[in-house]
Amino acid sequence: MTTVTVQESSSSSGQTKLPIVGDTSDNKPRWSNKPFDFTVPPDLEGKFPGYRTPESESPYLYARRQGIQYPNYTQWKMEPYVEKSGFQDKGTLSHPEKSSLLKAAKEVIHLTPYCGTEIVGLKLSELTDEQKNDLARLAAERGVVLFRDQDDLHIRAQIKFTSYFGEPHIHHQSGIIPDLPWVHPVYKDETSVNGLTSQVWHSDVPYELNSAGISTLRFDVLPQTDSGEFIGGDTLFANGYLIYEALDPQFRSWLETLKARSSGFGQAALAAKSGLETRRPPIITEHPIVRTNPVTGLKSLYIAENFTTEIVGLEKRLSRSVLDYLFDHVRRCLQFQCRIKWTPNAVAVWDNRSHFHTGIFDYFPKTRHGTRVIAQAERPYFDKDSKLFSEVKFKGYTTV
Amino acid sequence: MTTVTVQESSSSSGQTKLPIVGDTSDNKPRWSNKPFDFTVPPDLEGKFPGYRTPESESPYLYARRQGIQYPNYTQWKMEPYVEKSGFQDKGTLSHPEKSSLLKAAKEVIHLTPYCGTEIVGLKLSELTDEQKNDLARLAAERGVVLFRDQDDLHIRAQIKFTSYFGEPHIHHQSGIIPDLPWVHPVYKDETSVNGLTSQVWHSDVPYELNSAGISTLRFDVLPQTDSGEFIGGDTLFANGYLIYEALDPQFRSWLETLKARSSGFGQAALAAKSGLETRRPPIITEHPIVRTNPVTGLKSLYIAENFTTEIVGLEKRLSRSVLDYLFDHVRRCLQFQCRIKWTPNAVAVWDNRSHFHTGIFDYFPKTRHGTRVIAQAERPYFDKDSKLFSEVKFKGYTTV
Amino acid sequence: MTTVTVQESSSSSGQTKLPIVGDTSDNKPRWSNKPFDFTVPPDLEGKFPGYRTPESESPYLYARRQGIQYPNYTQWKMEPYVEKSGFQDKGTLSHPEKSSLLKAAKEVIHLTPYCGTEIVGLKLSELTDEQKNDLARLAAERGVVLFRDQDDLHIRAQIKFTSYFGEPHIHHQSGIIPDLPWVHPVYKDETSVNGLTSQVWHSDVPYELNSAGISTLRFDVLPQTDSGEFIGGDTLFANGYLIYEALDPQFRSWLETLKARSSGFGQAALAAKSGLETRRPPIITEHPIVRTNPVTGLKSLYIAENFTTEIVGLEKRLSRSVLDYLFDHVRRCLQFQCRIKWTPNAVAVWDNRSHFHTGIFDYFPKTRHGTRVIAQAERPYFDKDSKLFSEVKFKGYTTV
Amino acid sequence: MTTVTVQESSSSSGQTKLPIVGDTSDNKPRWSNKPFDFTVPPDLEGKFPGYRTPESESPYLYARRQGIQYPNYTQWKMEPYVEKSGFQDKGTLSHPEKSSLLKAAKEVIHLTPYCGTEIVGLKLSELTDEQKNDLARLAAERGVVLFRDQDDLHIRAQIKFTSYFGEPHIHHQSGIIPDLPWVHPVYKDETSVNGLTSQVWHSDVPYELNSAGISTLRFDVLPQTDSGEFIGGDTLFANGYLIYEALDPQFRSWLETLKARSSGFGQAALAAKSGLETRRPPIITEHPIVRTNPVTGLKSLYIAENFTTEIVGLEKRLSRSVLDYLFDHVRRCLQFQCRIKWTPNAVAVWDNRSHFHTGIFDYFPKTRHGTRVIAQAERPYFDKDSKLFSEVKFKGYTTV
Repeated sequence: MTTVTVQESSSSSGQTKLPIVGDTSDNKPRWSNKPFDFTVPPDLEGKFPGYRTPESESPYLYARRQGIQYPNYTQWKMEPYVEKSGFQDKGTLSHPEKSSLLKAAKEVIHLTPYCGTEIVGLKLSELTDEQKNDLARLAAERGVVLFRDQDDLHIRAQIKFTSYFGEPHIHHQSGIIPDLPWVHPVYKDETSVNGLTSQVWHSDVPYELNSAGISTLRFDVLPQTDSGEFIGGDTLFANGYLIYEALDPQFRSWLETLKARSSGFGQAALAAKSGLETRRPPIITEHPIVRTNPVTGLKSLYIAENFTTEIVGLEKRLSRSVLDYLFDHVRRCLQFQCRIKWTPNAVAVWDNRSHFHTGIFDYFPKTRHGTRVIAQAERPYFDKDSKLFSEVKFKGYTTV
Repeated sequence: MTTVTVQESSSSSGQTKLPIVGDTSDNKPRWSNKPFDFTVPPDLEGKFPGYRTPESESPYLYARRQGIQYPNYTQWKMEPYVEKSGFQDKGTLSHPEKSSLLKAAKEVIHLTPYCGTEIVGLKLSELTDEQKNDLARLAAERGVVLFRDQDDLHIRAQIKFTSYFGEPHIHHQSGIIPDLPWVHPVYKDETSVNGLTSQVWHSDVPYELNSAGISTLRFDVLPQTDSGEFIGGDTLFANGYLIYEALDPQFRSWLETLKARSSGFGQAALAAKSGLETRRPPIITEHPIVRTNPVTGLKSLYIAENFTTEIVGLEKRLSRSVLDYLFDHVRRCLQFQCRIKWTPNAVAVWDNRSHFHTGIFDYFPKTRHGTRVIAQAERPYFDKDSKLFSEVKFKGYTTV
Repeated sequence: MTTVTVQESSSSSGQTKLPIVGDTSDNKPRWSNKPFDFTVPPDLEGKFPGYRTPESESPYLYARRQGIQYPNYTQWKMEPYVEKSGFQDKGTLSHPEKSSLLKAAKEVIHLTPYCGTEIVGLKLSELTDEQKNDLARLAAERGVVLFRDQDDLHIRAQIKFTSYFGEPHIHHQSGIIPDLPWVHPVYKDETSVNGLTSQVWHSDVPYELNSAGISTLRFDVLPQTDSGEFIGGDTLFANGYLIYEALDPQFRSWLETLKARSSGFGQAALAAKSGLETRRPPIITEHPIVRTNPVTGLKSLYIAENFTTEIVGLEKRLSRSVLDYLFDHVRRCLQFQCRIKWTPNAVAVWDNRSHFHTGIFDYFPKTRHGTRVIAQAERPYFDKDSKLFSEVKFKGYTTV
Repeated sequence: MTTVTVQESSSSSGQTKLPIVGDTSDNKPRWSNKPFDFTVPPDLEGKFPGYRTPESESPYLYARRQGIQYPNYTQWKMEPYVEKSGFQDKGTLSHPEKSSLLKAAKEVIHLTPYCGTEIVGLKLSELTDEQKNDLARLAAERGVVLFRDQDDLHIRAQIKFTSYFGEPHIHHQSGIIPDLPWVHPVYKDETSVNGLTSQVWHSDVPYELNSAGISTLRFDVLPQTDSGEFIGGDTLFANGYLIYEALDPQFRSWLETLKARSSGFGQAALAAKSGLETRRPPIITEHPIVRTNPVTGLKSLYIAENFTTEIVGLEKRLSRSVLDYLFDHVRRCLQFQCRIKWTPNAVAVWDNRSHFHTGIFDYFPKTRHGTRVIAQAERPYFDKDSKLFSEVKFKGYTTV
């Protein structure tokens, strides 16, 4: 197994030394092919003897009832970072028309012209592989696909379902569910230290070598009014292809030549406030600012205000200036967004590479708990022959 | 009648001379008390002989069918700007519990915890004065109140309804409906020159001496898919009290001592591109940055990126820096927003003083046409004894 | 004679229409070859009958004593803007070693390593053409060359001397000396409206089609203490080649593909405050951001905070962001500056293309009066094969 | 002895924990009264047995010749930070007319109207106490006072001279001279890691509890041309009272209510790159942004881009925005600056509290070596009754 070469940041003057992930050798390890079987990482195993999250209850409520810390900042020793090669996105196996999925649906509702589709009348647990492949493509095209009333997609089924699209990701520095470390609990309470800092447009864990691909999110506890209506805690998604295309052509040409650094150090510092030492040391990774989606062949903007710290090779103030402009641009692109209002048993399936999302934290002091599972995908790359959104026509549905 | 004193901007170095509205004398004219009767301004009358917008058709489609320019940039000579005194907001006449309205409703749905309420089961055309007063208060508290299925609230009924809350505003530089100049058409097409420039958080016509108060908006043409679903062209609203409260206390103290300039020149320049000379010369008005709402007694932030040009008394770059921070702050406050999806005959009633809104322009090349009517209100003022949102409790409904 | 094509600015949304100078045809008029003879422009002639600035007194003090406005904002009708072709910089005729000039000098003092040289022991009035050519090269290399004690270089001699390097420029919107319109008075008093706005790094009149080349500056009134010491009103110069080279290589590559707009409108608005309508309508000109110097073959940064309004083709905020970074960069480059303390009869000769300068306004309420004459040069161009400062070796002198 | 209370920064989210210096108790230790006697700190003593810097040679050249590291990053254990009370500035003992100093001088040359005075014809080594007191006042008024040809002010004499004005400061994280730790070597060479990062307007060691007061600087190695002229490595000074006064009155009122954090962490990180662990842990100190000078009773701006990290109580982006504006304002204030060209044996005496300075690094790869000694002064405070520069008249000299 090839370990990652780390080097010191040249631009971190006045700061502590930061490991920056450089290129890895060619003989990278490959993705595992074996079916997902819920085998817990060796060093975690045995830390919670007998603990088993039930299907019938929110993992959060169950854990609290068992009297254990939740989200659980247990530490164990994770393997070093390695890039795995050979990832093939399931969306590339589908037919452009996605008809096995779309024709089976009772209804296909596009939430806004450029982002978000709700599929009515299908159970994720019953999709064929062909339909899942179509779903991967649809997510890559529409950003997020919502399925309501998935009452049978309990936590293990969610993990298993997501694992079809890629090896589930284990977070090295967030709270976990003790026996299901592939789940990132989406939850803020009195132990949460980041408050509104995560109300910011982002893609998840962008400092990883292999990025987040198809991801699923489901809430099992939602804020409610006294009369029982669900209110608050919506999630916004945004189409990263169009956010990119909306930039000036001359600026895009320049951005396509640049890389940016995504840092895990900020998240590690937050974790430290919850008493967690990271399970492997945080890293800073260099990725292209403009990223190609392997399914659609489209360019999107790949940055995030809470992770992207600098543009490689640019003087600190210039880097800050360009990034600030880009973060602001993302916030202004209301015309490429959709807003999802959660209901019990609704599940969102989204492409976490080429699209942005952010939670909305308007529900305190009420609580909200969700389970997020990420299928890992390829290392971000830029193919100069990839296209702009307006240069393609997606088949199988019509919007604006 | 007291005319307005204008003076030259001291900070407009390098620009043409700009009239800035100073304080007016004490013997201001008062609001008219007579009921609204659709009397067209004298200088406009006779310009479109025989033209009468029907109740049964979109004013936009009708005008186009008649072969006249629409929105119509007809010019006439409007009276000079004057501040009118003696405005009393109808919301101040209501009971804090708003029970005549809320109890009559079949359903009261809060869209998000801090912004937006939908009232089900009531016709605006049938509200009693007591209910309208309650509605004014509810709008001041919740930002926007939505009523769907108001199939009988045709254009004249909308104007008449809105006139209950204050004298309807006539725009001095936007397109109009020939016989109904109190309507601002919300429409973008090939003749629209501002594109995305109005996709920005704002309150309407803030350069006016008497600001926009209760306002109504209704769409009669909405973008649709081939299969007939309505998609695109949603509107966002945001709670300006909380946007203000979310600023640092030390910064708020300073802002409460400052005024900003709202300019009508930008809009005038856009109108000029459509061939319109403004009906009275554009002005720049100085208003407090922090404004008190007369109904709730709450402080809100009163600025808008497309109108607010500078902070009075601050060096140009400092003014720019502070305003940029504030505009960005507004954009980031996702937790105080709601998003309204329009349906035919839905009518939004909102408080245009203390709350922000913006359209979303994601539907081109499809078209969308709405009619906006603004009831004019008091000149913006700051009362240092007014409160923060979290210091009050609104009666009559429960959210977070 | 080919007149200039003007077009409307696409990015000036919300502003008045601005003429932007596009490319001109190939058959441009050529520079005049006839020797300079003090012929006043036809439309100006006769406006000040009998007025003749003496050699023996400051033109400023003389004009005031005559009771005429000074600087004089007389208006006359200037010819339209045209680009003239065929300019050949005198520096290109010199030998790289500049020995005819340098060897004749009693002393050659470099003010700082990268900017500014003082030549001791020579009279400008007595230089041979060969020495003048050397001087043009030296100015291109060192930014500014200072000669003190030029007691015989009265105003007409200064104009005549400068005309050797190119046709003297007549300002279309600044105050002039009535019979010597080729002089721009450098003077601020109670009629000056721009205060500190010109204390900013710039090159002169960058909105012109043919840019300012070799320029001369001489003060005939300097601020003094009660005891007669000269104090205040120094001038800073800075090396634009190195300011450019100090930018990130990746950023430089991008800048080399961009053009910026230089506007005369700001200056016209200032002139308007002094009661002057411009002698021809102000223009906005597009020039490359990175400019090649025809004598040294070096790249320099060609922008100025008081003239450059936007980068062509970039969204307004991005343009602002990039320009703000560049203006700030110029201010920070202390290591490429020199500071000239004026003495009576000192004359500065500088290359106004590739180098920045700014006055220092620390002497109010005392007065300072200088005469600036500009020899016009080629239209700014960028040659991709031109070099960075560090890639060349200047011959004939040694510094760091 | 009262040790300092440190607390964690509330705004350092995502970063390592930073100690912030809070208020200290009232029974602070007082300044020592005993005359300075070159006693080396106990833990440093014995680390360089027999080492003695000669009077006759640059400490830098001598140390290099001895084969020891220079500047020397020797570590020893310094006492914890304590605030010492009871400081009385010598300038307060002088007469406002400063006549014992000014009348003794052969010549008094003001460098620019608002900053910098050169005294000709006096030896610092021969000044009476009364003259030194006058000098302290003159430095507080003019920012910097320059004495050339101080050929007898060797390194020990410089330390001794400076100690008259306050206890000499020992740097906890910079290179030192082994037997003279009160000297901060001003030197950059191949071991220097900060390059241009210190070419920025600042006051020295602002993170200290007791700030830098009267400071002296003398260069014993200066960059020269091959022909022996001194060129490069000038130092800029700027008047902090006027820099403050040039801000908008409404902004000044707000700034007077705020504190900022000065951090020693950046410098510590640079030191770490030279292999030095700091001699006591770096701290972050809160000081008023507007500071009163005890001698002149004037307000000045007390911030520095390389030390001031944030404004206390302001949201991170707002703090950044306000500080960026202020740093930029300082850079733009050319009209309050002077530039000092060094010559052998020139000594600058300046008030390091109320005035800014920066080196100019234009001489690489040549070398420059200077010795700086700081007399410590009072902890920065803001007295709301202190004045603006224009509200006072300094006695004893005349400028503009």
